[in-house]
Parts: sequence; C-alpha cells; structure tokens
Amino acid sequence: MNEIHGTDDSGGAGTGADVLVSTDAPRGVRIPPGWTGSVTELDARSTPGFQGDKQDGEDRLAALDERLDDLQERLYAASRPTGEGRSVLLVVQGMDTSGKGGIMRHVVGSVDPQGVDISAFKAPTDEEKKHDFLWRIRPHAPAPGMIGVFDRSHYEDVLIHRVHGWADEQEIQRRYRAINEFEQELTEAGTTVIKVMLHISAQEQGERLMERLERPDKHWKFNPGDLDERVHWPAYMEAYDRALAATSTEHAPWTVVPADRKWYARIAVQQLLLDALEAIDPQWPAADFDVDEQVERLRATME
Amino acid sequence: MNEIHGTDDSGGAGTGADVLVSTDAPRGVRIPPGWTGSVTELDARSTPGFQGDKQDGEDRLAALDERLDDLQERLYAASRPTGEGRSVLLVVQGMDTSGKGGIMRHVVGSVDPQGVDISAFKAPTDEEKKHDFLWRIRPHAPAPGMIGVFDRSHYEDVLIHRVHGWADEQEIQRRYRAINEFEQELTEAGTTVIKVMLHISAQEQGERLMERLERPDKHWKFNPGDLDERVHWPAYMEAYDRALAATSTEHAPWTVVPADRKWYARIAVQQLLLDALEAIDPQWPAADFDVDEQVERLRATME
Repeated sequence: MNEIHGTDDSGGAGTGADVLVSTDAPRGVRIPPGWTGSVTELDARSTPGFQGDKQDGEDRLAALDERLDDLQERLYAASRPTGEGRSVLLVVQGMDTSGKGGIMRHVVGSVDPQGVDISAFKAPTDEEKKHDFLWRIRPHAPAPGMIGVFDRSHYEDVLIHRVHGWADEQEIQRRYRAINEFEQELTEAGTTVIKVMLHISAQEQGERLMERLERPDKHWKFNPGDLDERVHWPAYMEAYDRALAATSTEHAPWTVVPADRKWYARIAVQQLLLDALEAIDPQWPAADFDVDEQVERLRATME
Repeated sequence: MNEIHGTDDSGGAGTGADVLVSTDAPRGVRIPPGWTGSVTELDARSTPGFQGDKQDGEDRLAALDERLDDLQERLYAASRPTGEGRSVLLVVQGMDTSGKGGIMRHVVGSVDPQGVDISAFKAPTDEEKKHDFLWRIRPHAPAPGMIGVFDRSHYEDVLIHRVHGWADEQEIQRRYRAINEFEQELTEAGTTVIKVMLHISAQEQGERLMERLERPDKHWKFNPGDLDERVHWPAYMEAYDRALAATSTEHAPWTVVPADRKWYARIAVQQLLLDALEAIDPQWPAADFDVDEQVERLRATME
C-alpha cells in the first residue's frame, strides 16, 4: 500500500441508493494509514473514478445537489429534539489558488446555509499565537446536526511551520500526535471527519496566479506573499506527504483530490460529503408530542 | 403618512442599471418615521411593486442572483486591502412559519457563503439573560465587507417581552431607545441596516402549521409552544406596530414585506439587498503592489 492507487478498493461508503452514487464515483484518492508515497505521483489533471468530461461533471454536480441538500436537512433535523447527534467536519487544505473558495461556493454553498458553519483560518493573531495551535480550532468543531467546514485548518501548523522551520522535527511530531488525538475525540463524539487536500500542479498555480495579475477585478485576491510561498513548492509537497502519512488514520483518513480541473474537485468533494452523510443515514426524528392532539389544538384556532 | 402605502414614493435606490431593477420593483412597504398605522392594514397576499405571478417571481429571483452575487463579491473585495469598509446587516423578523428559513436558503444562500454571516437568535440562555439584551447581539454585527443576517434579533426583546408582559412599558421604551442608538452606531460605522418584517396572515400561519403536523418529515419543525404563541396573534401584531413605529428611523428603516406568497417575500428581500449594495456601490480595490513587478516575479517561477 505504498503508492497512490485508484478508488476501487478505497472502501467508499456508497449505498447504491442512487445510480449516480455508485462505487465507481469520483472520490479522489484515499490515503491509507502507513502510506509512504508522495502526492507528486498523482497527476493533478486526472479524474479518478470519473470517465466524463467537464460538462458531465457540471451536470453531475447539479444533479446531486438535491440529494446532498436532503441529507443535510435530515442531519440537521435529527439533532433538533435532543440537541445531540451526529455531525460532519470537512477539512479543506491546498496550496494557494487550489480552489478552496470554489468548493465553499459550489459544493458547500448548495445546502441550507443555516446548517453549515464555515471557518476560515488565516495567519494566527498575536493572541492566538500565545496558545497551543489547537486552541483556536477547537471552538469551531461542528455542533450536532451541523456540517462544519474548515477553509485551511490546524494542518497549517504542520505544513507552513515545517517548510519555514518555525517548528522543529520533534515539535512537528508532537503536533501530529495532538492532531490525531483531537480528531479521534471528534469522531468519538459523533463527528465524521473528511480531510481533503486539493492537489494542483505548480504549472496550474502559475497560470491561476497570472490570471489574478492580469485581471483588475482579481487583483484583490493576489498577495505578493503568495509568490514567496510558491518558491517553496517542493518543500510544501514534502510537508504534505509527511503530514498525510502521519495523520491519515482509520477514523479520519485523508483524501487527495486532483484539482487542476476545478469541476472534478467539486464533484469529488460533493461525493465525499454524500458518502459521509449516507453512512450516517440520518432519519427524520419522531414527534415528541401527540400529533392528533396538536392538530385539534390548531383547528380550534382556525375556526 | 399615517397609513401604509405603496412603494412609489418610498425612496428606493434603484439605479436603473438593469431593466429588472427599476423603481417599481418589489420592495414591500417602507415604514416612515412617525408612522401610526398597523401592519394589519396591509394585505399579506399582496405583491406591492410587482405585477407578475409566481412563475414571474421565481424567474426574477433566478435572473437577479448573479447581480446580487457580483455586488456581494465587490463588497467583500473592497474591504480586503485595509480590513475596513462598508457592510450590510439584514434583520429578518416574522411570526413562526413566516418564511425566514426560505429567505436564508433562497436569497441569502445564493451568494458566496464566505461573505455571509448568519446569526440565528433563539431563546436566550441563562448566561445571556444575565446581561443587557443587546449583549448577545453586538458581537454579531457584520465585519467590514460582510453581509450579516439576523434570523430573529434584538427585536424579540420588544415583541415577545411586550406580549407576555416580561418587561413593563417603561422598560420597553428604554429598549426602543437602546435599539435606535445601537443601530445608529452601526450605520455610522458603515453598516447599511435593512430591517424586514415578514408579514403573514393568521390564516396562512394556520395552514403552514397544519402542513407541519400532517407531514412526518416536517414534525421536527413543529413545537407545541408555537400554538401557545399563536393564541396571542393580535397582541403580537400590536407589538409589531409599536416596535416598527418606534424604531423605523431614517438611518435604519423598517420594511413590511407581505409574505403569504413566499415567492414575493423572496424577491422583495432580494431587491432590498440589491438596493443597499447598489447604494454602497462597492468598487474593486486597486492593487497595493506593483502589478508588472509581480508578473515578472511570477514569470521567473514558470520557466
């Protein structure tokens, strides 16, 4: 299990409830525990588990919207009577321009905004730096019934920190352990953890950054610091390899999603969310009141 | 100005940039400062400013999505270089089943979720009750560049509290003043405040509650307490009349949106958001770096 392979044996949780949600659906590439490969072995333009083209992908995204929407509403509803229940956490990591924003808009954005809690983690503030790296993360774990989404995450503390040497090897190893414990706590509390690395090529990033520079309405998305980081591309890929190997666990596995084709990344993340929700299989909660009695009460107000 | 009238002289901010965004667009009914009327005078099935039917309304909602999306992105972008700038706060009030959730999904949900901050205010916790009623509200004022949305709000403290006598007249008056000062602070800090009452009839609420009781997948949305409140319908309408009269100011006016037709309420709130954003007229920020220099740097990484 040392190389990145297709999704046929990735243990996807498709229930076969819908013909579009079959086992050979787009799911990116699952990283097994103990993996010793490199993300650079995976073609960022590939579309594992999906034979179609861009139009097919866009059609699929639209076609499965409703299913995702329905499952999300059930998840939300299931927790209402007791305030307890399952939740989902989607962690999205990737280099600049890898399409995190597009995932937020076009995948996450298709479900009821009241059931989603997006947290964007930028460079930590001075106050946040005074605490352990998980201090600012923990309060954003999703409440029962919610889909939490991390746009960047606690993984920055083992990626950029490794690349720039802000933490030594011993500290990085400590953080891997802390992350695994934290994510295990989450899963034990009923949260399904999905971790996605949006995998783009350096060439693709260059083109996307160039577009930001060429279009005045995109200038605001560009930061000269992005180029400072780009120079460290190989070091980032190695930091991802190490982090994925150390933190892809049975309870919280990593999936590498090729993302040079934005449409593929979106249907893959959509599928991962569908898988997680179908495995939870949330049910409409039973009424905690006497329905007939309430109907009578309501009728009395309508005469 | 003592009665509710149409929108022809409501001072809407349509710029005429798009034929669909004209001055006779659906905007509900603006409440003037010093108003002494009653919301019960307004037909909850009416569609002020709009001649079309349901299909026309749905077409309009879809057609103006992109415009709203574009303006929201500009608002967000404009604040990025400095962390300062304008914002919008949409306060949505209404009786149970008035369609607040549908506004969140179908109007607010159509823009980038990263640019929207929805706060749902339920019954206050014990901790929150220890503080002044605005204590739990203030932290949710939108940051620069954001569209903040309140699903219920500080107005509950002058509505349900008046209806149940949890606050006496003197305290209610104090709260009106505190609200007006708070909202003035917001507008002076650059936030455009939109306040919407979704106005349904008691008959329509009865039908919507009955649907929740008749469908097992809707039971979770029903609470027997909803019927306890329904009995106080006339008192709620009076509490709205008083609150709207006391807090519809030049800087933060109220709009009553007839909401028995859900499609109308959605296009009206969409229009109010468009008006607010068009009045702000946010511009793409200028680059705070030398574009040519960055292009050169980027090219050097792509050879």
